[in-house]
Amino acid sequence: MRGAVMHAPGYVEVVDRPDPKLLAPTDAIVRLSATCICGSDLWPWRGADQVRDPTPMGHEYVGTIEQVGDEVTTIKVGDFVVGSFFTSDNTCEICRAGYQSRCTNAYPMGNEGTQAEYARVPMADGTLVATPGQPDADLVPSLLAASDVLGTGWFGAVAAEAGPGKTVAVVGDGAVGLLAVLAARQLGAERVIAMSRHEPRQKLALEFGATDIVAERGDEGAARIKDLTGGYGAHSVIEAVGTQESMMQAVRSTRPGGHVGYVGVSHGVELPGKELFFSGVHLHGGPAPVRRFLPELIQQICEHKIYPGKVFDLELPLERAAEGYRAMDERRAIKVLLRT
Amino acid sequence: MRGAVMHAPGYVEVVDRPDPKLLAPTDAIVRLSATCICGSDLWPWRGADQVRDPTPMGHEYVGTIEQVGDEVTTIKVGDFVVGSFFTSDNTCEICRAGYQSRCTNAYPMGNEGTQAEYARVPMADGTLVATPGQPDADLVPSLLAASDVLGTGWFGAVAAEAGPGKTVAVVGDGAVGLLAVLAARQLGAERVIAMSRHEPRQKLALEFGATDIVAERGDEGAARIKDLTGGYGAHSVIEAVGTQESMMQAVRSTRPGGHVGYVGVSHGVELPGKELFFSGVHLHGGPAPVRRFLPELIQQICEHKIYPGKVFDLELPLERAAEGYRAMDERRAIKVLLRT
Repeated sequence: MRGAVMHAPGYVEVVDRPDPKLLAPTDAIVRLSATCICGSDLWPWRGADQVRDPTPMGHEYVGTIEQVGDEVTTIKVGDFVVGSFFTSDNTCEICRAGYQSRCTNAYPMGNEGTQAEYARVPMADGTLVATPGQPDADLVPSLLAASDVLGTGWFGAVAAEAGPGKTVAVVGDGAVGLLAVLAARQLGAERVIAMSRHEPRQKLALEFGATDIVAERGDEGAARIKDLTGGYGAHSVIEAVGTQESMMQAVRSTRPGGHVGYVGVSHGVELPGKELFFSGVHLHGGPAPVRRFLPELIQQICEHKIYPGKVFDLELPLERAAEGYRAMDERRAIKVLLRT
Repeated sequence: MRGAVMHAPGYVEVVDRPDPKLLAPTDAIVRLSATCICGSDLWPWRGADQVRDPTPMGHEYVGTIEQVGDEVTTIKVGDFVVGSFFTSDNTCEICRAGYQSRCTNAYPMGNEGTQAEYARVPMADGTLVATPGQPDADLVPSLLAASDVLGTGWFGAVAAEAGPGKTVAVVGDGAVGLLAVLAARQLGAERVIAMSRHEPRQKLALEFGATDIVAERGDEGAARIKDLTGGYGAHSVIEAVGTQESMMQAVRSTRPGGHVGYVGVSHGVELPGKELFFSGVHLHGGPAPVRRFLPELIQQICEHKIYPGKVFDLELPLERAAEGYRAMDERRAIKVLLRT
């Protein structure tokens, strides 16, 4: 099959890779309908994460079941499925508490590299969720978004306890941040403040339900949030970047007793204990347990209630993956969908 | 009046201090029945916090109202009251959400120095809670504990979401840690693991409801907690020290999706963002909003349901405050009560 590999920062190529095979009776093989490039794929592209050997890329995926192992019981050949970027048994105590991304048997789908034509999904029963029937083609981008960016933004909003009566601020205007805006609104937040200085992203944030836009960043951004909230700070702040500046912007934008939900993969962040202590905020986040939310998100998408696929503003054939990386790196595209 | 001041690390003296006066119509003057030395008073004693000028010490207090300002309406002369170490208006949005210690008008009672015969309490209506009638003398130590260490341990347990079906671990065996054990048990925790290597403290932890004792510390301690919880980690961990080691011990003892409640005043702590991210824990803490819990705690004490005053294992007259500091510093006493 064809699949993208990264050779070094800034150097992605689509090459022939071995077709995946069932390795365990709980595996499934998915023929991917579409895949995409994640903001977190830019960390190695930019040299912020090491690239040692040529590395298969990608961890987001939707597609049709091609083959299942003998012990797979809930998923069958021909099903259209959405999966998350960590596999999960969905039976351990951690999964049952809703933290499938930290399942005791979790396995990162990034190791399989889903920017490809096929992918092996371990623990298929615990990882994959089938759609009700075959989805129309126009639903595929939204279902693909559910695999990571929507699920992650949703978790950020849940972790930040976005809900009725709350003022929610979102730090980060990538696909995750924008979908956190959508999630906060769907969860009933009264006011959703998107922090963005990029006009096309501001527009999409408003389309997803943002009520206010703040263009300032860092401490200026936090001061602006305080201005907008009677001096108190937001009840809920979603952090969707992962840098020191964005984390501190999130903490400082939150009122005492408020909630920070952080889903940007942390890079070089050191949280000052004393400031955090006196901030009195709640802090929760990490790799999103997307599997927890998939059934609900798939339903909302299939009922045309939400259109998270709008974050894909560039579509390319898989063969041109490298172009997609460049477009995202240069912020010419919010998120790139790769057709297989 | 007589009151303790700290001149320099290791040097506390009881001296004549001016009698406090009403400065605002919302103030009250309390004649203190008893006061005490806090674990946090040991930071400057040990030189970890700076002591610039002779500093009045103490922020815990119970006593009888001697005088009230014209605008005080809920507290009257003769009432026996318990207050918290931050004053609060108890009307702003932050207070109404239960975070009185971060009230927009909060004022640290440490500035008044309650290791003394009298204290001025600003915002008396929002800060003080009167007991039902005059308490028996044997209740005074427990009521004094409610002013900080019980309220703080209680908040730690609430922040860690201790409750029915939960396994709770407590890092720190000072008065706050021991009372966090009591709180976790009162909140219905199934299993409470006290982390302590000091026999008298282990004994008191068991008396307060601990079901297990773990003597190991740091990563060994965290590994022991995992052993005791099927490899997962505790659901809830209360951190009651404030050092880098204790914070990391707490985070590493908690299962993904579990809750860390941290109430040890942070000293030199830097939380590694990436580890925190992948831990998947909830983190909440800070200066305890004791005022939130005071009505309930006073009731439980007056109904003889809890005996938090047991943490006072040394009682001295105020004049001998310096001896009390030494005893706590050398861990010969858990907590010292000073009779005024």
